[in-house]
Amino acid sequence: MNTTTYKSLRFAVLGGDLRQLHMASGLSKSGCDVKLYGFDGYTDSTEGLTVYNDLKSVMKSCNYIILPLPYSTDGVTLNAPYSKKSTKMNEIYDLTTKEMLVLGGKFSSHDLNKRGIKTIDYFEREELQILNAIPTAEGAIQTAMEERPYTLSRSNCLVVGYGRIGKVLSSMLKGLNVNVSVSARKFEDLAWIKAYGMNPVLTGELESIISQYDIVFNTVPAPVIDKTVLKNSKKSTLYIDLASKPGGIDFEEARLCGIDTIWSLSLPGKVAPATAGEFVKDTILNIIKQEGLKNGTE
Amino acid sequence: MNTTTYKSLRFAVLGGDLRQLHMASGLSKSGCDVKLYGFDGYTDSTEGLTVYNDLKSVMKSCNYIILPLPYSTDGVTLNAPYSKKSTKMNEIYDLTTKEMLVLGGKFSSHDLNKRGIKTIDYFEREELQILNAIPTAEGAIQTAMEERPYTLSRSNCLVVGYGRIGKVLSSMLKGLNVNVSVSARKFEDLAWIKAYGMNPVLTGELESIISQYDIVFNTVPAPVIDKTVLKNSKKSTLYIDLASKPGGIDFEEARLCGIDTIWSLSLPGKVAPATAGEFVKDTILNIIKQEGLKNGTE
Amino acid sequence: MNTTTYKSLRFAVLGGDLRQLHMASGLSKSGCDVKLYGFDGYTDSTEGLTVYNDLKSVMKSCNYIILPLPYSTDGVTLNAPYSKKSTKMNEIYDLTTKEMLVLGGKFSSHDLNKRGIKTIDYFEREELQILNAIPTAEGAIQTAMEERPYTLSRSNCLVVGYGRIGKVLSSMLKGLNVNVSVSARKFEDLAWIKAYGMNPVLTGELESIISQYDIVFNTVPAPVIDKTVLKNSKKSTLYIDLASKPGGIDFEEARLCGIDTIWSLSLPGKVAPATAGEFVKDTILNIIKQEGLKNGTE
Amino acid sequence: MNTTTYKSLRFAVLGGDLRQLHMASGLSKSGCDVKLYGFDGYTDSTEGLTVYNDLKSVMKSCNYIILPLPYSTDGVTLNAPYSKKSTKMNEIYDLTTKEMLVLGGKFSSHDLNKRGIKTIDYFEREELQILNAIPTAEGAIQTAMEERPYTLSRSNCLVVGYGRIGKVLSSMLKGLNVNVSVSARKFEDLAWIKAYGMNPVLTGELESIISQYDIVFNTVPAPVIDKTVLKNSKKSTLYIDLASKPGGIDFEEARLCGIDTIWSLSLPGKVAPATAGEFVKDTILNIIKQEGLKNGTE
Repeated sequence: MNTTTYKSLRFAVLGGDLRQLHMASGLSKSGCDVKLYGFDGYTDSTEGLTVYNDLKSVMKSCNYIILPLPYSTDGVTLNAPYSKKSTKMNEIYDLTTKEMLVLGGKFSSHDLNKRGIKTIDYFEREELQILNAIPTAEGAIQTAMEERPYTLSRSNCLVVGYGRIGKVLSSMLKGLNVNVSVSARKFEDLAWIKAYGMNPVLTGELESIISQYDIVFNTVPAPVIDKTVLKNSKKSTLYIDLASKPGGIDFEEARLCGIDTIWSLSLPGKVAPATAGEFVKDTILNIIKQEGLKNGTE
Repeated sequence: MNTTTYKSLRFAVLGGDLRQLHMASGLSKSGCDVKLYGFDGYTDSTEGLTVYNDLKSVMKSCNYIILPLPYSTDGVTLNAPYSKKSTKMNEIYDLTTKEMLVLGGKFSSHDLNKRGIKTIDYFEREELQILNAIPTAEGAIQTAMEERPYTLSRSNCLVVGYGRIGKVLSSMLKGLNVNVSVSARKFEDLAWIKAYGMNPVLTGELESIISQYDIVFNTVPAPVIDKTVLKNSKKSTLYIDLASKPGGIDFEEARLCGIDTIWSLSLPGKVAPATAGEFVKDTILNIIKQEGLKNGTE
Repeated sequence: MNTTTYKSLRFAVLGGDLRQLHMASGLSKSGCDVKLYGFDGYTDSTEGLTVYNDLKSVMKSCNYIILPLPYSTDGVTLNAPYSKKSTKMNEIYDLTTKEMLVLGGKFSSHDLNKRGIKTIDYFEREELQILNAIPTAEGAIQTAMEERPYTLSRSNCLVVGYGRIGKVLSSMLKGLNVNVSVSARKFEDLAWIKAYGMNPVLTGELESIISQYDIVFNTVPAPVIDKTVLKNSKKSTLYIDLASKPGGIDFEEARLCGIDTIWSLSLPGKVAPATAGEFVKDTILNIIKQEGLKNGTE
Repeated sequence: MNTTTYKSLRFAVLGGDLRQLHMASGLSKSGCDVKLYGFDGYTDSTEGLTVYNDLKSVMKSCNYIILPLPYSTDGVTLNAPYSKKSTKMNEIYDLTTKEMLVLGGKFSSHDLNKRGIKTIDYFEREELQILNAIPTAEGAIQTAMEERPYTLSRSNCLVVGYGRIGKVLSSMLKGLNVNVSVSARKFEDLAWIKAYGMNPVLTGELESIISQYDIVFNTVPAPVIDKTVLKNSKKSTLYIDLASKPGGIDFEEARLCGIDTIWSLSLPGKVAPATAGEFVKDTILNIIKQEGLKNGTE
């Protein structure tokens, strides 16, 4: 897309946290027309962003509506922690027209679709999930550095699971001179772990090798770090769980064993909201490239 | 599998090149019983390998038959470059029983299956394809070092395609302090390239950025390095094609432009037959683990 | 040195912080005989450490006295933050005999030398200074992660100075996929920076390139980040000063410019006391290897 | 130096191999005025280089004379392998004036200095020696790849010595996922090896650990790989000696043990003459910056 194209993209960014602010700022810097709603008191003329208090005037002229991540915590009101005002999702829906494309995070919107309005959940995009593994991995490294009186360098770390987070985290740990093992269940993942110069471990055999690790990062949302594994673990091992609910560590058993555990969720928004916002912006522009442009109603 | 288990595995390794010899040696070192056929004059008592000249006695007592990669070049005779003797596939098939498992490379064997004998093509295993990307990447690096009067370090390299070879090669080039760009078509691959700290490029936009590269490694078996790309390239750029037939470079156009190209095929067997053989061995043992053990007929 | 040798090494570890405790623990695990003084209430029979309250009984049978880092903050009393009791250096000196070797940090001890007692400052050892660059670099990375809402990955960082900390820090940043530039004054350092695959910058030319960096880590204890450099800097750039006094940043000017600065001193003892203690232990054993063994007076 | 400055630099490049040609080409691209002598038949108008056959006309107008590396093999005639003509050093000396600066490789020139003409040996410059470690390391890697039927990735390599070549080579091997050990004698070098995430080994203890390595790269020009070390080595280990005369391996003993050895000398000019030439160019411009400019005699 060229500069002229970007100028024709008119966004209404409704609610959200720092990530959405940075996302809006990124869109604006790319040349798009961006109106912010739900960020009371925020003004930054240098970044070309203007905050509006009137939902109607924000939505009137836009062709893309961006809802936050998640769009709502109760399904009824807009998720807008930086605003004192409560905005009903229905108010937004009523102002939406078929000429608009609605992009939201963790967004299911039968109502809008019924009215013939297209919606896309940007959080389900594979590229965003991959990019979010970067701040998640950095957040995990920061946590490990903060919690332990040892350096990461030359420590023995195990990454459980070789999905998106496992891949990026193990690669960064290696870059910090950590002795990295990664566990996986599939032979092809073990082959990848070898090809990237790390030590492959079968997830099913964790209990027999767990005692050699100083830190264990779990990325698998299933009960892999169970009683048996914890009983074979050193008490001084730090467990950091990065898996979404239900997590992968038996936290109660760990407590009984006197083993330290930390459950770190939603790291991108916490440790690097600016970068996380840029990734949302990139993803939104990718979606628009693929979907073709919307013509506004102005 | 434990030592006792390995001892009960009896292999007949029939034909093949250095890779099969190293594979056989690896099986033997793991504790398996291995009989070699098709390696005239080879004897290495230190590795516990014995070469037999009589096909019948080799096959009689085994429960796993290993055919080479490829098992045959004409479909009729066994591929056995280290033997002066010609062996018909049918001779082998006739000695095969239902108690045996037949593992071959690039192997299709309707005849055997019809007789109720199970066959598996180990070359189709994903983990072997991934592991083979390691010697392929090293072979590509060796070729680039041999061909150019410049160091790889600090050169500008483009890897076209982010499949198995693209992933391993780009990672190794980065480890040699190369400025690495990788091209891909999917947004999610571009996200991975970013997450691994390299410069992502859209394959569709190659012609506009091709002129900045000193070396281009192609891994895509489709015409991506076409006339337009080559015309926008520096004449001094070296193109190394790692893609299987039909390759990805318009070699005729490159010749007309005075651009150097090298088409490097089947690198694992050429640059690192010993390691390639070990990978075949690992894959075969993985298959046996998954399939369950065969009991011999002895 | 073999196990028997280690057993004949009898240490009195007097005062200090967590580092000394970990150092003492490390010596004990190596097989040495270790008596602790100045850690009230600490007991860990599992690590073979015993805390004594009576200085005389601790020193009587030892052949190596270990003083903390620094050995004293006022030159008169022992630096012993984990003890309620105040111990005069003179008490220690009076119990020291010529058969003992006294090892201290930042230690100048004319008194002892006059009495014919050998002293060594372990903090002046080059290997300890190098090893301490590891926790310092990790502490700097942790600080950068904590302070900025962006990921380190893919950010533009400048490391000013290519001494011990500059070398280790730049190498770790590279491992985290940071775009790393390093500034130095000598052509040979610039050559090293190139050889290690980073971008070399002349320290004298900082002002013309400073605006492109997101984070600047200073390691030079001289006024290199002066008014001119700061005036050419982005306001959003984070400056982290790792240089010992007087530091290398004009902090007052930075404040006036609205630029964030952090002066991080003595990071090893703060972020990784356990590892820092192990490094002190390794250094002490190196010294003993080089100096030859002392025979105790028991 | 700015463009105007470069234009005022007039070079006579006399003799040498491909490196000098690339060096001359680099000077020319930087804007300098360059005349070539001793490259019969070479013409490349695109690079702004002109070859002269008459020494007098080449030297008349220049202010910098560049002699090759080494400047002469017999001390009497110019080292000019690309020329059929033999040129006496004395001819050159007689045409040299006090207004000129003479830069040569491995150059000792009492005669010129006696006449009041300044000479500098660029090969003795630390930055050139450091930069030359890059092509040397790549050449060593290329050799190891060519000689062994195994991949470098995941192999066990030992680098003996942690000087310039040891540092760059070990770092590149690590980048290729090699398990790297480095041996050194000084505790501070062992600390650096640890800080860079590799396995440190005492050179004096080589014999007890040598048997675990697949490849040994020696960089020490002293007899470190002696009979005892070789007798404890695997026969399959490949030894690559990168040390200048007398080398560090007992080649005769290795032959008797049936161990493969390769002595690789002068790699930069062999494997990467273009890059090696660029490094000479950079070094020459550094020297001129430090020495101040010469005004020509035109």
